[in-house]
Amino acid sequence: MKLDSSGLQVLSREECLRLLATTPIGRIVFTDHALPAVQPVNFHLDGQSIVIRTAIGSKLAAATRRAVVAFEADEFDSELRTGWSVTAVGHAQAVTDPAEIDRLASLPLPVWAPGGRNHFIVVEAEQVSGRRIHGR
Amino acid sequence: MKLDSSGLQVLSREECLRLLATTPIGRIVFTDHALPAVQPVNFHLDGQSIVIRTAIGSKLAAATRRAVVAFEADEFDSELRTGWSVTAVGHAQAVTDPAEIDRLASLPLPVWAPGGRNHFIVVEAEQVSGRRIHGR
Repeated sequence: MKLDSSGLQVLSREECLRLLATTPIGRIVFTDHALPAVQPVNFHLDGQSIVIRTAIGSKLAAATRRAVVAFEADEFDSELRTGWSVTAVGHAQAVTDPAEIDRLASLPLPVWAPGGRNHFIVVEAEQVSGRRIHGR
Repeated sequence: MKLDSSGLQVLSREECLRLLATTPIGRIVFTDHALPAVQPVNFHLDGQSIVIRTAIGSKLAAATRRAVVAFEADEFDSELRTGWSVTAVGHAQAVTDPAEIDRLASLPLPVWAPGGRNHFIVVEAEQVSGRRIHGR
């Protein structure tokens, strides 16, 4: 088991992608007016791509246009002090191809927020890192 | 009830701080080598300050030195599609005053990760925003 300098278990890329597929909620991290910004989103892992559904005029859609973003998901048990987190960093891209939009619309990616949300942002998981904490 | 353009309920600063105090885990969002970075941390809300305990040589300690960072916490129920998220943006600062370190060390802020962690980072919650999603 590989540990980092903080004593946390370092997860393989394969394990990171497996964990990302187990949770419906993550957080997209970007820059908004030169300040760090973060927004929770529900998502679907499509191969090595993180697919997010949003409204076309949303702040998220504007701020992530052709930007490098980070995407984080985690799961912790605060009683046992165990859990994992995975972060992917990569280019965000709005999907414009109608056939691809149709394909993404058929993914199991429910819309949580009210209102029309037929705009898709895809983040390529170019760099992936993950840690697991084993608790007391 | 005030709604944003996505139909999510906008939370007051007071409600945001109340929610932050209910959860032990959040995520600190910063810039690492010019890329967006995010790391889960356990924390304690001390008045209007987010207190994080880390190791003095950690990447987090280095990257947040005198930086403006974002801090996010949330709680979602993926069955009901309900939940909330709160983001605070403010200056991060390493605590160097020995009396203040003693005071912070007495806060209910357990160390999850192994190893010595007597370095405290405080993020002032200068800008606070929060949303609640009410589900299906």
